[in-house]
Amino acid sequence: MRQNELEALRSQVTELNDKILDLINERTAVVQEIGKVKEKQGVNRYDPIREREMLNSLKEKNNGPLPNGVLEQIFKGIFMSALEIQEDEQRNALLV
Amino acid sequence: MRQNELEALRSQVTELNDKILDLINERTAVVQEIGKVKEKQGVNRYDPIREREMLNSLKEKNNGPLPNGVLEQIFKGIFMSALEIQEDEQRNALLV
Repeated sequence: MRQNELEALRSQVTELNDKILDLINERTAVVQEIGKVKEKQGVNRYDPIREREMLNSLKEKNNGPLPNGVLEQIFKGIFMSALEIQEDEQRNALLV
Repeated sequence: MRQNELEALRSQVTELNDKILDLINERTAVVQEIGKVKEKQGVNRYDPIREREMLNSLKEKNNGPLPNGVLEQIFKGIFMSALEIQEDEQRNALLV
């Protein structure tokens, strides 16, 4: 009985993992678009003020159970990775 | 024109941030449930094999543009934070 309960909960986690991955990929694609627009404008891609605004907005909307400190850690990771991908592309573009 | 394009893309990012946050909160709640079941069973909550399986499954399903290395970083952060929250709860329960 307990084992089935555990299995059901784990299936839920797997499903949520997949949905989170889909959304992070979608987000990465949009950030890549933003990078292209900024490049054409000759604007610096890294925007710490916008990053801080996004974090504040997320913390305001957060209803838990995720604590805001952990929220900040996770999203900083997501923001940074989007930036790293952009930089890699830029570096690759320079090598071509 | 470009500025409007940038604004539209940024709205998309904000919307995606919010959806990702909702799903991470949902995931955290399910992981808390799993923690309770495991506690009743007297089983250790941290399960590195299950964590590795989840990461492998995500990497297999990943269609990008997120590279698998970055995927792993982000999800390790999500997994670890769920664990930290559980440990905090356990610690608080011991203090009561």
